[in-house]
Amino acid sequence: MAAGWQQLAVAPLFFLLLLLLLSGVLTLPLGGENKRTPTCGYESCHATKPNMLNVHLVPHTHDDVGWLKTVDQYFYGDRNDIQHAGVQYILDSVVDQLLKNPDRRFIYVETAFFYRWWKRQSSGEQQTVKQLVNEGRLEFVNGGWCMSDEATTHYSAVVDQMTMGLRFLNETFGPCGRPRVAWHIDPFGHAREHASMFAQMGYDGFFFGRLDYQDRTRRMLAQEQELLWRANIDPLTFALDKNKKNPPGILPNGYNPPEGFCWDQSCDDPPIRDDPDLEDYNVDDVVMRFLAIAKSQATAYKTNHIIMTMGSDFQYENANLWYKNLDKLIRYVNARQGNGSRVNVVYSTPSCYLQELHRANLTWALKTDDFFPYADSAHDFWTGYFTSRPALKRYERVSNSHLQTCNQLEVLGGPVSRNGPFGEGNSQTMKKAMAVAQHHDAVSGTEKQHVANDYARRLADGWRHCQVLVSNSLAALTGSSAKRIYCDNLNISVCPLTESSKKFSVSVYNPLARPVTWPVRLPVNGTAYTVSDAKGQPVDCQVVPVSRATREVRKNRGFAINELVFQVQAPPLGFSTYSVSLLQDGPPPAAATKHRAPTAIQNKVFTLSLSNLETGQSISLTQNFYWYNASDGNNSESDQPSGAYIFRPNSSTPFVISQRAKTETVQNSVVQEVRQWFAPWVSQVVRLYSDSRALELEWTVGPLPIDDSLGKEVITRLDTSIKTCEMFYTDSNGREVLQRKKDFRPTWNLKQSEPIAGNYYPINSRAFIKDDKDQLTVVTDRSQGGGSIHNGSLEIMLHRRLLYDDVRGVAEPLNETSAIFPEGLVVRGRLLLSLERPPAAADAHRPLAQEAVLQPLLTFVDGGLSPDTRLEFSGLQAALPPAVHLLTLTQWDGDSVLLRLEHQFQSRESRVNSQPVTVNLQKLFSTLEVIGVSEMNLSANQWKDEMIRFAWTPQTDSEAPPPKASGDASSTWEVTLRPMEIRTFLLRVALR
Amino acid sequence: MAAGWQQLAVAPLFFLLLLLLLSGVLTLPLGGENKRTPTCGYESCHATKPNMLNVHLVPHTHDDVGWLKTVDQYFYGDRNDIQHAGVQYILDSVVDQLLKNPDRRFIYVETAFFYRWWKRQSSGEQQTVKQLVNEGRLEFVNGGWCMSDEATTHYSAVVDQMTMGLRFLNETFGPCGRPRVAWHIDPFGHAREHASMFAQMGYDGFFFGRLDYQDRTRRMLAQEQELLWRANIDPLTFALDKNKKNPPGILPNGYNPPEGFCWDQSCDDPPIRDDPDLEDYNVDDVVMRFLAIAKSQATAYKTNHIIMTMGSDFQYENANLWYKNLDKLIRYVNARQGNGSRVNVVYSTPSCYLQELHRANLTWALKTDDFFPYADSAHDFWTGYFTSRPALKRYERVSNSHLQTCNQLEVLGGPVSRNGPFGEGNSQTMKKAMAVAQHHDAVSGTEKQHVANDYARRLADGWRHCQVLVSNSLAALTGSSAKRIYCDNLNISVCPLTESSKKFSVSVYNPLARPVTWPVRLPVNGTAYTVSDAKGQPVDCQVVPVSRATREVRKNRGFAINELVFQVQAPPLGFSTYSVSLLQDGPPPAAATKHRAPTAIQNKVFTLSLSNLETGQSISLTQNFYWYNASDGNNSESDQPSGAYIFRPNSSTPFVISQRAKTETVQNSVVQEVRQWFAPWVSQVVRLYSDSRALELEWTVGPLPIDDSLGKEVITRLDTSIKTCEMFYTDSNGREVLQRKKDFRPTWNLKQSEPIAGNYYPINSRAFIKDDKDQLTVVTDRSQGGGSIHNGSLEIMLHRRLLYDDVRGVAEPLNETSAIFPEGLVVRGRLLLSLERPPAAADAHRPLAQEAVLQPLLTFVDGGLSPDTRLEFSGLQAALPPAVHLLTLTQWDGDSVLLRLEHQFQSRESRVNSQPVTVNLQKLFSTLEVIGVSEMNLSANQWKDEMIRFAWTPQTDSEAPPPKASGDASSTWEVTLRPMEIRTFLLRVALR
Repeated sequence: MAAGWQQLAVAPLFFLLLLLLLSGVLTLPLGGENKRTPTCGYESCHATKPNMLNVHLVPHTHDDVGWLKTVDQYFYGDRNDIQHAGVQYILDSVVDQLLKNPDRRFIYVETAFFYRWWKRQSSGEQQTVKQLVNEGRLEFVNGGWCMSDEATTHYSAVVDQMTMGLRFLNETFGPCGRPRVAWHIDPFGHAREHASMFAQMGYDGFFFGRLDYQDRTRRMLAQEQELLWRANIDPLTFALDKNKKNPPGILPNGYNPPEGFCWDQSCDDPPIRDDPDLEDYNVDDVVMRFLAIAKSQATAYKTNHIIMTMGSDFQYENANLWYKNLDKLIRYVNARQGNGSRVNVVYSTPSCYLQELHRANLTWALKTDDFFPYADSAHDFWTGYFTSRPALKRYERVSNSHLQTCNQLEVLGGPVSRNGPFGEGNSQTMKKAMAVAQHHDAVSGTEKQHVANDYARRLADGWRHCQVLVSNSLAALTGSSAKRIYCDNLNISVCPLTESSKKFSVSVYNPLARPVTWPVRLPVNGTAYTVSDAKGQPVDCQVVPVSRATREVRKNRGFAINELVFQVQAPPLGFSTYSVSLLQDGPPPAAATKHRAPTAIQNKVFTLSLSNLETGQSISLTQNFYWYNASDGNNSESDQPSGAYIFRPNSSTPFVISQRAKTETVQNSVVQEVRQWFAPWVSQVVRLYSDSRALELEWTVGPLPIDDSLGKEVITRLDTSIKTCEMFYTDSNGREVLQRKKDFRPTWNLKQSEPIAGNYYPINSRAFIKDDKDQLTVVTDRSQGGGSIHNGSLEIMLHRRLLYDDVRGVAEPLNETSAIFPEGLVVRGRLLLSLERPPAAADAHRPLAQEAVLQPLLTFVDGGLSPDTRLEFSGLQAALPPAVHLLTLTQWDGDSVLLRLEHQFQSRESRVNSQPVTVNLQKLFSTLEVIGVSEMNLSANQWKDEMIRFAWTPQTDSEAPPPKASGDASSTWEVTLRPMEIRTFLLRVALR
Repeated sequence: MAAGWQQLAVAPLFFLLLLLLLSGVLTLPLGGENKRTPTCGYESCHATKPNMLNVHLVPHTHDDVGWLKTVDQYFYGDRNDIQHAGVQYILDSVVDQLLKNPDRRFIYVETAFFYRWWKRQSSGEQQTVKQLVNEGRLEFVNGGWCMSDEATTHYSAVVDQMTMGLRFLNETFGPCGRPRVAWHIDPFGHAREHASMFAQMGYDGFFFGRLDYQDRTRRMLAQEQELLWRANIDPLTFALDKNKKNPPGILPNGYNPPEGFCWDQSCDDPPIRDDPDLEDYNVDDVVMRFLAIAKSQATAYKTNHIIMTMGSDFQYENANLWYKNLDKLIRYVNARQGNGSRVNVVYSTPSCYLQELHRANLTWALKTDDFFPYADSAHDFWTGYFTSRPALKRYERVSNSHLQTCNQLEVLGGPVSRNGPFGEGNSQTMKKAMAVAQHHDAVSGTEKQHVANDYARRLADGWRHCQVLVSNSLAALTGSSAKRIYCDNLNISVCPLTESSKKFSVSVYNPLARPVTWPVRLPVNGTAYTVSDAKGQPVDCQVVPVSRATREVRKNRGFAINELVFQVQAPPLGFSTYSVSLLQDGPPPAAATKHRAPTAIQNKVFTLSLSNLETGQSISLTQNFYWYNASDGNNSESDQPSGAYIFRPNSSTPFVISQRAKTETVQNSVVQEVRQWFAPWVSQVVRLYSDSRALELEWTVGPLPIDDSLGKEVITRLDTSIKTCEMFYTDSNGREVLQRKKDFRPTWNLKQSEPIAGNYYPINSRAFIKDDKDQLTVVTDRSQGGGSIHNGSLEIMLHRRLLYDDVRGVAEPLNETSAIFPEGLVVRGRLLLSLERPPAAADAHRPLAQEAVLQPLLTFVDGGLSPDTRLEFSGLQAALPPAVHLLTLTQWDGDSVLLRLEHQFQSRESRVNSQPVTVNLQKLFSTLEVIGVSEMNLSANQWKDEMIRFAWTPQTDSEAPPPKASGDASSTWEVTLRPMEIRTFLLRVALR
């Protein structure tokens, strides 16, 4: 990426500045007891032998935060009929076993589980664990609340979940609890943005297990399984690709022990039988097998150190089995050194292994793209989960928006938010629910149905707790304790209050740091309303009939016949309140006009021309819906079916759902829309609000019919006149953009074996196609998979319904139904299309995408408001500059808040906005005085200036070394953000 | 049993006498350290609540000493692909968990495993375990090397294995290691002789799990699941029939926890989820379910105490799962007492529960018969295993004989036996192998094939070690170090030495305490030999051709064409040596005479008349071979097939194998025999030696043909003119005899549902039928099943080959093949028939059966013996009286030996022999001086006078209270044995 070097230059600067900042006003909020000098971290590693092959045995457990069972079922060990797994027992057992032998080591990863366990331990037990942590015998790696998915998560939720997990470790254990390495051994492909975040969080290395089988083969031969991964913001993110002995085509188990050496209770490998008085003494056999494996593995790595992960999914529930045999293995293998063996085995951790690589002082291969898509065999592309469970993916995304609003209002409303007129509320429940939802079997859609339901239930529960907080906060900010109503089903035109009330108000809270204009659509049964804004000025509003598609999807959950449509404006980090009254004798709304033959802008439904009148651009655009017939596994090339993980169409040509659509049009002063009906299970509204720069495509898909026994993967495809030259672009976790090229991978010679699935990439917030003149950007409302199979074309997968399990463990076909939709889930969503000149496209899609992610929250009050109610409020003194995104504002503890500011443009992306920009922290808030500031790493578990990471040297690096960057502006309170930079501050604040 | 009271009278006497003996010369050989006052045993029980229902939770594991895996595979946790089970980890884990909470309790049962584990522990770990034992937190129950089978074991081997296990516990832990209760929760039916032995071993109670489903139902209604079981020798053996909630017809799991409360890693029951912050809080539900179960269970028991076994097969490998949830269960259930609950739960052990029953001071139902046959449903009689694996059953029996010889020669030969001219030998390997073979899935034949092979291999290995010992000992006793050859395949006429040698000697060691005459048959290739005895006198010998059946069964393992036959005499506990020389020009042997039409004594092959010329008795006797067609489970009444456990013929009428046999006769001065050929897979030799009182039927059965896809269960049936009135008699574990009546059970109203299988009983050493005049006794050479289906008839099952598993867990059809017999195992055995007047029958069958059990051992020396070789030796000064059996003579430690003397007649069984008899211990041995004696309980883990057991009162007892018996004879060294009494002495000895 061209953008790389400019960012690289910035890093050293941070260290410098932060030394200054540390001498400032803040006290140490970082916790942990240090009764004796700890010897954790790199110092606690076992000695190795320089002239031998050193084998690092890493005892570990991989504990999914929900997958086949819910997170709490996994914690307790409930529903062992589904899968034997009980994390409470794992931690019990590991601690017991670590105490038996000080040489033993263990790493633990998922703080969601560790937290549950920790709070049930007595203080004596807690003290024991602290001792183990302080001595480096129990080491946390990764340490987020979960091990997040990389293909379907949004960076803001990932940063949040990592922050929550690492904060718990920091406050519980202090510096010894800080993970030194990131550990993503299971996610199904790896995003560059994750590597970037991990670098900014201070990790020295990044271990993962899954990469394309062709990539792996090449890397093994080239000894490039250890490599440097250059993310954008940070000089070098170190990524280590863990040993995986299994040849491609075998089920992926890259974090398992070598074959024959699994001693968990879930394995059947022979234990070491070392009592010569008993039958089957096998020490010699075990040692010989181990030496052979170690020597073979060593050929694919560069140094005289290799790593073996001794553990797997939910292992170590009875850690004695593992440790008893590992103790023996180490003893007997090392005893061979007396007979000339040159192999040395030690208990180790990933960080100890990493330290040895660092000591080796070698140069390493460099990587700048990402690890998508992931294939573990020629016909096994893990690109289905980019779209799996689209409803859950949307609910997770909208929940993130709710949570950020909840966090902000907790800060802005003050302590009364948590305990106020509406009772006790909190953001913590929602934070935990969102953190859990980032797991790589949560928002990814690769969990069992009952677990998906549990994730959704947790989010709903979190939102209930946030609603109380939001109501309390708004009561404080408005000065009115009138009851607030939340309508979470506005997307299907359901809101009992607006359906029946003759007079109500709606407050629009905007979590962005700049004002937004937003269309509001409320279900109503009246035919005419008046709407007035916070200043009492009338607002243009229209009543339009509820569409047939909406009536069908809402079923009996609402009874509105019309929708009241108007545009609202909301101030930065604040709200504006609109009053709505029914006009008793208003005119009836204009009925939607039915057309068989399209008219006006609909006369080119399938091949319309899309124009930007401002820029004078115009492209031809065909859009339609198609479905791929999912492979059922009955195939001559491979028996791999499409499933929750895998996308595998049985033909590269999708079926069109309908060549023509029935259409209706609505056109008034607020909105123009074409309602399209393609089939009983596919409809769409093409919608343009009066002052919007984006065209909205609201799709409604489902229930996908399966009476033909064919699994279906529904896409919408945009075919344009743009000359794409086989390129298209997708974002990485909602932030930076990567270029994708058809049938191509930047780091190896791809042999393409799946022409569709092998060209699919995750789209978290946007994708675009462009040529010299035109850039068509599609902003999504959730993570989806997509590709550009033909020149000028962009397809996005919307919904999937499959009849076979894809044999990656979930053991359920992805065939979503529910009580409300027993015949199959119906999913609705929005694509926002923006057509701009390429050099200015980011100026449109960056704010558009942030609006889609952090959308306004509507709250309702029935009847009239008391006269002293404050109708408008902004938490900021002024809107932030367009390039600056307020990523995080959340209460940290009593008098401090956590603030993250982000430059939301990449360098060179925008002529206007891709420039450094400076913000004065003291002039930020309208109601809060900032009386102290300290900068932290991205995950807020380390002072920024204490974040000193290993330096690594790339093998070859054609780019010039980065120039030294200049520092922040002169004032302590002024902070400068460079393109794509996120800066994290702990602020001490007081209400003005 | 009429014999009961006379024995009862004896017991109190022992206590009295032993007080005297204790003041004698012996030091305390019982080990164990007692650094602080232990509070183990009954004193360590948790307090209960008198006015509540007390639920005794008994954490336990049931660890089969071989079954689906070998004993060492079970110990290590090897071959977990077959069954997940690793005893080393169980003990590791239980000890760890007991240390976490002093309230917790655990019982351990199988010393074969505990011993393996113990010797791998550090002294620190051992000290910790001792502490747990001393505090009653870890309690041993049963404590034998294994939990022996009750239907197919011989009492002598059971006493040995119990002694070995209990000795280890005693020497390791002292009195706190002594089990208070017997615990046979799994064996498939229960023998009265076992109850008798347990009483004599000092147990206060006997817990078991399996009894006939009809019996159980009646007992539950009558609250007779706790009962008194009167064995013969001892006043009252207390037997407790554990709770089993499962209705009949369900797979038996009487030692499992109540439904829904299994918290082992192998179970899926919901854990107690008591964190109110997490989902699925279930404490209330768990408590309610538990209370309901406890109250329901209480209705079937008499006191306000009930017991729940919290464990099962190989459970507690990760004991934390169990204890963590049990701790919570106890806490939450008992917390309900604050709300008026009257249920109290405690950690407990079977002995603590037993103590509460004893304190209740109630009267209990009385039982005097046994618990055979065991049926768990109408068509599911566990009577197949009485015969399953007949070759293993024979090998176990002959190994016992070898072991007793080995033990005796270790004592008689002195220390040089263990380390002498032939190297290091020991009896310990064989002792352990025999102890393991007593397990209820070993000699029972209910293990997998590879495990059966392992048992046999262990016995062979044990015998190899014993052979060195025996050679060393005989070298010492004979004064000759000439190499001794062992021929273990004489039963199929294989012995390379005798087949080729022209001159050799054979020593005959007799392990019985009286002289025996024994026929010797040696494979030879010469036609004429001279044999001379130890005094140089010629012995009548004959050469007869090897039979066709023998040639076929030996295959290429031997090449003898003839057998040299002569009778030898061997002194008590001693040997006699015979010299054999080939006569170069001897006459050819008489060919066997082939007959189609039977002649002389063969003219009634199928209906011959059997006469005893001495008594003048004569009965008509028909004998033939038949096979039952094993049910394949495809049956309208039940889908139960015949299998390793279950015998279920699909018709009550067996098929005759052949109405007629091809015969040959051999008749000479030594032996007369009729060789019968019924089919390629069934042949027999009817054989009568010149001075034998028993007719020998040597049967050879197999390979059972299965090309008709029918499983076969082969019987031989004796149909006689004896008027049996539906009665017949079988022994119990080779000792006392029980009367069996067709379609009848003494303690409940039997509803017979399997006319054949439901009338089968175990025959360990003999069965007989009789009327007023005649008693026909059949002495067997191994345990077999048999019945008397028709009046005057006795059938014995010889061999089984089945094509279906019988769904009791072994998961293999009982279809034995081997490398030598790939087409199916061939089994050869002997029945000895004795026809006597009933009052004198025991005088014949008691010694006959002991001869079959402890048979002479032949050893060979090639060439001539050096002139100073001692050719004859007896370890005794004189033969013991006919009523006295020397049950045990084995080295205990450096200067002491264990001696068991047994009165081998029941009272009233023999006019001559059923009288008390006195033996002088000092006049016993020819080469050993007895310088100290102390009497012990049967299992030699307690001084006899310290053996004070709970007294229990039967509900009703029609028999008069026993009269006080008189004491031993006046001398300290003279011990009196009463009918069926076994007395166990530790002797301090010195070589004279």
